[in-house]
Amino acid sequence: MAKPIAGPEIERLIQLLAKLPGLGPRSARRATLHLVKRKEQLLGPLAAAMAEALERVLVCSVCGNIDTSDPCTLCRDHARDQSLVVVVEDVSDLWALERAKALNAAYHVLGGVLSPLDGVGPEDLTIRQLVSRVGSGTVREVILAVNATVEGQTTAHYLTDQLAGFEVKITRLAHGVPVGGELDYLDEGTLSAAMRARTPF
Amino acid sequence: MAKPIAGPEIERLIQLLAKLPGLGPRSARRATLHLVKRKEQLLGPLAAAMAEALERVLVCSVCGNIDTSDPCTLCRDHARDQSLVVVVEDVSDLWALERAKALNAAYHVLGGVLSPLDGVGPEDLTIRQLVSRVGSGTVREVILAVNATVEGQTTAHYLTDQLAGFEVKITRLAHGVPVGGELDYLDEGTLSAAMRARTPF
Repeated sequence: MAKPIAGPEIERLIQLLAKLPGLGPRSARRATLHLVKRKEQLLGPLAAAMAEALERVLVCSVCGNIDTSDPCTLCRDHARDQSLVVVVEDVSDLWALERAKALNAAYHVLGGVLSPLDGVGPEDLTIRQLVSRVGSGTVREVILAVNATVEGQTTAHYLTDQLAGFEVKITRLAHGVPVGGELDYLDEGTLSAAMRARTPF
Repeated sequence: MAKPIAGPEIERLIQLLAKLPGLGPRSARRATLHLVKRKEQLLGPLAAAMAEALERVLVCSVCGNIDTSDPCTLCRDHARDQSLVVVVEDVSDLWALERAKALNAAYHVLGGVLSPLDGVGPEDLTIRQLVSRVGSGTVREVILAVNATVEGQTTAHYLTDQLAGFEVKITRLAHGVPVGGELDYLDEGTLSAAMRARTPF
């Protein structure tokens, strides 16, 4: 747009909000209007929350989780079995597993998956940190909770190779029919995997 | 969720972002992760832009537009025909008309539409300000650019009544086939209106 409609401050807010995932230029404009109409209730608190997050949020040096303390809340939680390490691609996966209360364990965030096409090699992930964590002898089991994609499975195989020399159990998430899922809508790969891994009823 | 996964600062950021239109709890988590992973490039600038908007953005006392100056940029623009006043429901409509470069005129933001069911009466909108603006004698034409909804049209009729005593031309946006629209996909009301308002070719 040649001529800005509102002041440069508002234009800048729109442009920055449009960089958030899930927001485009149009919805960023709507969000900006929503914010400036609710200065006291929303814009102020959000600006303050962002300033505080900017100052206090850091990456846990043990597991790669995002928190306001290092080591993070999960790594310092002695009620968790710290000898069980769940390897995930991203913090969002860690959050998803925690929401599901899937396991009371520690985590290791890889920061991505191996993807030669995108130029992501082992040195771009926290694989070295995982190997040294396992090498310290405190880890009993490594659970590979990477996504069931080609890159995820490639990464899982690579990790298994890297950890082969250690006395550690390596497991992965089960494949199968999602709870609540309808067979008719599932792909053949999932159905075959679920059939192969069938369990006594 | 019973136990917060991340620190309270991150949880609070998620909760506040989830209040933006277009973002729900899940996308707010994704947006928060996106932000805290890009502290320097995005979180910092966004926090600063919000703090600045919080401090500087205000509502124009003349037209109801949102800007960092009062009267706003549009009201102070002498290259605009300030005797043409486009009445819109919301600032977003003003922005939409400006993006379209529809007319080089002044605006009047009503702040909503009359809606007895929602408890919105004439005193909740800037109707009194519009009447006194027209009463000052500087306005030549009032263009009712309210939405083509029942409430919008009710509001348009109410405004016409309120402005009946003044020497001012009152017009409204044309109804018709949207540019690029296909007849087969249009509702009957629009097609009838377009047929009634047909123009020489």
